[in-house]
Amino acid sequence: MAVDRIGFIGLGVMGRAMALRLLREGHALRVYNRTPERSHELGHEGATPASQPAATAAHGGVVVTMVSDDHALKEVTLGTEGLLGRLGEGGVHLSMSTVSPQLSRELSELHAGAGEHYVAAPVFGRPPAAEAGQLWICFSGSATARQRVRPLLALLGRELFEFGDDPGAANVVKLAGNFLIITATEAMAEAFSLAEKNGIERRAVHDFVSSTLFACPIYRNYGLAVAEHRYEPPGFGLPLGLKDIWLALQTAHRSGVPMPLAGVVHDRLLASVSKGRSHLDVAGLAVEASEAAGL
Amino acid sequence: MAVDRIGFIGLGVMGRAMALRLLREGHALRVYNRTPERSHELGHEGATPASQPAATAAHGGVVVTMVSDDHALKEVTLGTEGLLGRLGEGGVHLSMSTVSPQLSRELSELHAGAGEHYVAAPVFGRPPAAEAGQLWICFSGSATARQRVRPLLALLGRELFEFGDDPGAANVVKLAGNFLIITATEAMAEAFSLAEKNGIERRAVHDFVSSTLFACPIYRNYGLAVAEHRYEPPGFGLPLGLKDIWLALQTAHRSGVPMPLAGVVHDRLLASVSKGRSHLDVAGLAVEASEAAGL
Amino acid sequence: MAVDRIGFIGLGVMGRAMALRLLREGHALRVYNRTPERSHELGHEGATPASQPAATAAHGGVVVTMVSDDHALKEVTLGTEGLLGRLGEGGVHLSMSTVSPQLSRELSELHAGAGEHYVAAPVFGRPPAAEAGQLWICFSGSATARQRVRPLLALLGRELFEFGDDPGAANVVKLAGNFLIITATEAMAEAFSLAEKNGIERRAVHDFVSSTLFACPIYRNYGLAVAEHRYEPPGFGLPLGLKDIWLALQTAHRSGVPMPLAGVVHDRLLASVSKGRSHLDVAGLAVEASEAAGL
Amino acid sequence: MAVDRIGFIGLGVMGRAMALRLLREGHALRVYNRTPERSHELGHEGATPASQPAATAAHGGVVVTMVSDDHALKEVTLGTEGLLGRLGEGGVHLSMSTVSPQLSRELSELHAGAGEHYVAAPVFGRPPAAEAGQLWICFSGSATARQRVRPLLALLGRELFEFGDDPGAANVVKLAGNFLIITATEAMAEAFSLAEKNGIERRAVHDFVSSTLFACPIYRNYGLAVAEHRYEPPGFGLPLGLKDIWLALQTAHRSGVPMPLAGVVHDRLLASVSKGRSHLDVAGLAVEASEAAGL
Repeated sequence: MAVDRIGFIGLGVMGRAMALRLLREGHALRVYNRTPERSHELGHEGATPASQPAATAAHGGVVVTMVSDDHALKEVTLGTEGLLGRLGEGGVHLSMSTVSPQLSRELSELHAGAGEHYVAAPVFGRPPAAEAGQLWICFSGSATARQRVRPLLALLGRELFEFGDDPGAANVVKLAGNFLIITATEAMAEAFSLAEKNGIERRAVHDFVSSTLFACPIYRNYGLAVAEHRYEPPGFGLPLGLKDIWLALQTAHRSGVPMPLAGVVHDRLLASVSKGRSHLDVAGLAVEASEAAGL
Repeated sequence: MAVDRIGFIGLGVMGRAMALRLLREGHALRVYNRTPERSHELGHEGATPASQPAATAAHGGVVVTMVSDDHALKEVTLGTEGLLGRLGEGGVHLSMSTVSPQLSRELSELHAGAGEHYVAAPVFGRPPAAEAGQLWICFSGSATARQRVRPLLALLGRELFEFGDDPGAANVVKLAGNFLIITATEAMAEAFSLAEKNGIERRAVHDFVSSTLFACPIYRNYGLAVAEHRYEPPGFGLPLGLKDIWLALQTAHRSGVPMPLAGVVHDRLLASVSKGRSHLDVAGLAVEASEAAGL
Repeated sequence: MAVDRIGFIGLGVMGRAMALRLLREGHALRVYNRTPERSHELGHEGATPASQPAATAAHGGVVVTMVSDDHALKEVTLGTEGLLGRLGEGGVHLSMSTVSPQLSRELSELHAGAGEHYVAAPVFGRPPAAEAGQLWICFSGSATARQRVRPLLALLGRELFEFGDDPGAANVVKLAGNFLIITATEAMAEAFSLAEKNGIERRAVHDFVSSTLFACPIYRNYGLAVAEHRYEPPGFGLPLGLKDIWLALQTAHRSGVPMPLAGVVHDRLLASVSKGRSHLDVAGLAVEASEAAGL
Repeated sequence: MAVDRIGFIGLGVMGRAMALRLLREGHALRVYNRTPERSHELGHEGATPASQPAATAAHGGVVVTMVSDDHALKEVTLGTEGLLGRLGEGGVHLSMSTVSPQLSRELSELHAGAGEHYVAAPVFGRPPAAEAGQLWICFSGSATARQRVRPLLALLGRELFEFGDDPGAANVVKLAGNFLIITATEAMAEAFSLAEKNGIERRAVHDFVSSTLFACPIYRNYGLAVAEHRYEPPGFGLPLGLKDIWLALQTAHRSGVPMPLAGVVHDRLLASVSKGRSHLDVAGLAVEASEAAGL
């Protein structure tokens, strides 16, 4: 793609890794973060710090947002010096955070009212994958805008999956994906506890299932953490997992879709937080199954 | 291994496929089935029909059992002309059915009292995999007996997984495996229903998850059935899935391991049977999630 | 109490019954309803219709709100010509709707900023009980304000229960109460289905439990509806029950309290709505248990 | 009734209280207990100890059994010197234990084959109620036999409830009743935890609900224990509650009735036992809800 200047908002662990990738691929980046230290840090890598969200925008250009939740996304979009109406005609808000489909739909309409575009493009993968451009990315929004951001996304992801015009669609898929990940983790936690109480090594069961029926990244990686009860340092923090399951349940409630498995894992994660295990990786929900079995 | 005569009891769809594999690999087989027609049918393939379970045994040899449930396994082992005490010194009961760990432990002790061995060796895979010797097999029992049956199992499975001396261990792993399969299926059913009610194609979500995070046989195959609501003809019948989840719950109850996800899928499968969907594949539990969402 | 003029906002089935009670007990009422027909209707009973929420307030007086949900309460309080800042110094917003504790806490703070009071006073009971002044009322808020509204509440309720200064407390108790009601209903639905499939009359089981262990209004009344599958006309509409359980789950989520039973009944109610049974009473969630049992 | 000699088997806390009641009402009792000390103890109250179950029977008379579970009931009925075939023509086995409906049906048939009767008559109430003849009793079995035992049951219960000819029916009702009790207890545990984390006294919520909507024995008594976390000494032991819920789930499984609430409370009780809380009353399952909320 033509290497042009883009804006980037949100420099948490994940956002920073993505921004670095874009910088190294030759993009000029104007970056904003609520706590300015992180913007300045990225200044050393060639980015230009901005003091307000709106200041990251180049007229008609693309601004990426990668923030922690609905509240933060509203703030950088609708707050003082927010993005809305400051992208310029044809500009694109490329929203890569894990947020509710509803918010995407609302922001998309608001941007449209200002002649701007909104594309939801949540990602799967951990920071090292982001830095290496090896994420899996789902995206949706108007066809024009999707066409526009595709080359940029291609720098970040090893594979892109399009989900049509509804800007909320990609968010639904992201929430469904995280639901599948967390449920698979809980399922392994229960299965390994059953094995352990029957005198069988957790690792032996994990090695078997993750090399046969479930020979895939989630069962291999999350499963290994669960088999060995190894949850620190967190790659995907437990409270973020709880937030995502809660978003999934809210979306399910609004859509009229009972999701009993989501209810079970929500309760596991909520108990983990209430008991003081917020510092663990989301896979740490497996501690609940072990405790309940008296292990 | 020395190609010697072995006994084979239980010629259902799966048993028949396994017996055929053994015949074609050069084994002489003496076969028994409750309804004799199936034994005679296999006679055309070179097997010798036996009129009683005990009659399949050669002194000190191996007899494979592949029957539908605990009740059937008790019958062919402990019933009139059952295997117990008829295998001969050093004979091995190679028990490949999906049964409770408890029954394996009980039968193992009884056989030991008669100078005989018992090895539990439940399998994962469908009939065509059995006929091609491509099953995944978990096995456990005394080291001597395991050593003895290994070459025979190698003809049936593409990979063998040993789980030590406890004859119930392999059954626990089998039940844990089926629990993981069925739970993954229910998780996809919920996720795809959420997508569908948000205007997203079920297939699109399936294609995404099963080629990335969950690029493995269960998500690919069961997931495709769920995405397309294609449950006939059944490969793994819904009532058998219910039986297995019930065995898992019984084992969990006895072992003191709460398994809330197992409870949820049990209720889905039980409802499916009560509503008259016993003719479907186990993946047909997904109809429940769709119905509950008003789809 | 001195019979003085009060404001009354929200003339749904329940609000209307409460307003009638107050009128008949000699209160002058200035009433507001979003759709004005209902205000005028009550005009025939002696009430004075107001065209805006704020217009129901007498300087420093009491205004009762009895609306359908958080959204409606925000509208009449914070919207154009809303109550906030229009009650006058010392005025009391007596909030009797079933809303979230969080909203009560927020509105209480806003009113306090304007020198006004907020008391949460949700009620238990159906319209005829309201008209007869036989409700059960839980209330909380500042001690002064509670003291002030006590005589008014005494006209509506046969018993009053105070829950201290936190304006959200009474709402928590209301949500907990509705959770208990709905869970007891689901429990009976499951128990009666078990009985029915074992050839036992649902009514016989109901008669037994509701005259012995559970000889109390909820088991007697909701239980009878469940035993006889009689859900029309609705006294407490199924979608309102779903709303309340959802508020309970949201409150539980924010408070860090896993409530697995609430998750189960939420899914039952959500399925009922998705399947088109919104016209039933909340006890109609029992249809789900029967359907799942193939009845 | 004519005060005649009856047999009584099973002198646990509950059985002993019932036997005392019968003795004090003038019945001659021949008693058996697995550990003979308890029989001799009751000898001081006028009972005649028997050394075998069969020895409690008078030809054509009634023998009451009140034992801990299915296994124990099978032993005293079918074991060496068991009741079967020893009651004499027209004799009645009055089975008052909490056992599976299936076992009642099986034993009833076996007794019928010997010209004997079987009536299931499980009870609700704690030992003091038994000693005072204030139990609630459900019973079922052939009409003749029911007629025969009615006067005897009337000495033990303040109210009798008949459930027809199926000997399993009364057991189904008993299991349904215990399921309702335990579910109500869990519901209060969740509700009180929600209140507590919102700064509201558990007792205040309990006082409110148990004097209004739920003014009945179970909510009052079990609820008080839950509100005050007072679970010792146990009146109805937690492991017995687990056994009963498991019987309910087994019956539900066999009857094709999904009971999600039963699944939840089963997991709570199982976790309680696995964590070492078997010495508590069944209401101690409430500790789980508190722990999960970080209380």
